[in-house]
Amino acid sequence: MSLNVDIWSDVVCPWCYVGKRRFEAALARFPHREQVELTWRSYELDPTAERTDAPAGAHVERLAAKYGRTVPEAQRMLDEMTANAAAEGLEFRFDLARPGNTFDAHRLLHLAKDSGRQDALKERLDRATFTEGLASGDHVALRAIAVEVGLPAVEVDDVLASDRYADAVRADEAQARAYGISGVPFFVLGGRFGVSGAQPADALLAALEQAWTEQPLQTVGAGPSCDGDTCEV
Amino acid sequence: MSLNVDIWSDVVCPWCYVGKRRFEAALARFPHREQVELTWRSYELDPTAERTDAPAGAHVERLAAKYGRTVPEAQRMLDEMTANAAAEGLEFRFDLARPGNTFDAHRLLHLAKDSGRQDALKERLDRATFTEGLASGDHVALRAIAVEVGLPAVEVDDVLASDRYADAVRADEAQARAYGISGVPFFVLGGRFGVSGAQPADALLAALEQAWTEQPLQTVGAGPSCDGDTCEV
Repeated sequence: MSLNVDIWSDVVCPWCYVGKRRFEAALARFPHREQVELTWRSYELDPTAERTDAPAGAHVERLAAKYGRTVPEAQRMLDEMTANAAAEGLEFRFDLARPGNTFDAHRLLHLAKDSGRQDALKERLDRATFTEGLASGDHVALRAIAVEVGLPAVEVDDVLASDRYADAVRADEAQARAYGISGVPFFVLGGRFGVSGAQPADALLAALEQAWTEQPLQTVGAGPSCDGDTCEV
Repeated sequence: MSLNVDIWSDVVCPWCYVGKRRFEAALARFPHREQVELTWRSYELDPTAERTDAPAGAHVERLAAKYGRTVPEAQRMLDEMTANAAAEGLEFRFDLARPGNTFDAHRLLHLAKDSGRQDALKERLDRATFTEGLASGDHVALRAIAVEVGLPAVEVDDVLASDRYADAVRADEAQARAYGISGVPFFVLGGRFGVSGAQPADALLAALEQAWTEQPLQTVGAGPSCDGDTCEV
């Protein structure tokens, strides 16, 4: 028996990174963690963001302008988020943060999925964004990060130079719309149970337990069949 | 929105081939058929079957011996099955049938899955078994069939000469055990609804409709998240 866990997330989403840590904490306590098949699903908070980034250091001003707040208000929001992250052991450096388009980062996450390195790349991208000031659309930085987690450079270059996995990103986003997902992180457990947002580890663990327990099939009908003792050729 | 349909089946299972036709009839009437993602899952009715086959022509005698029936009784079973198949437009030629181990056929079905040719190969294998007297373990015949449906010969040869996809076959069978599946065909709709056996198309269509309708997520909790208007970096 396995349990699919699909997490819709962006790489510029602070609650997603906090939620990743909370999910990891829940998973560490989940008795069937070896049977969990985790997939990171693409979700762009701002598909219209420019790929080319602004310089670091003006994030609080950009945030204030974007959301119509004063700079001190925006700084309080960032301080609160930084504290939430610190409680999960994460060091958020919004003073270094830069905006950027995340579409290509998501395409690389799909490449990484094929070779089992998706979670490693997701972690590395989140850390780069929130601790190291990555501009998400920066191909030079993305390439270095992808190669660092073990993706073949030739494959990474090919993805960045083409539109490979664009369909996969859009398919994830279409699935999110079909599910009615309007914010991230969003956890789908067993294709059936939805958890919206970065809930505490206890709540995520309870959801994992529920999805596991209620996983057995609901039989909706029976007809003629063959078993080991009848009717094979 | 998509709907996964996983069908556990063997290639020497007459009800599986009949069930395939009934499922196809149901699918043709299912309004969301373009969103159905069909996967054939491996199930061996007799994992201990010898790969090397008996000559054709003695199937009814083998069947009678295997199930402790008289030859006329076994013939009646075959005639009834042949009539069931004919009602679905299938020509069963049990007079040509030969036994064989199906493990390698299942490995090829996993290879075919990777290139979108799984359903074509499944259909061709079933027809070979039930209409043309294929011995399921015959590598020469399997190779010809696999190449005929468009699999690259070099890949087919590599699979047949190795144990590639053995783990995938065993994983399908482990999943079947976890679901409590003891006979095939067995349909799993949306990872959630189980249909045992070759039910009529009407019943399969009703199951598809139910799985589609009840697919939306059950939300089991909400926590802090980011949407397009808040909190991204």
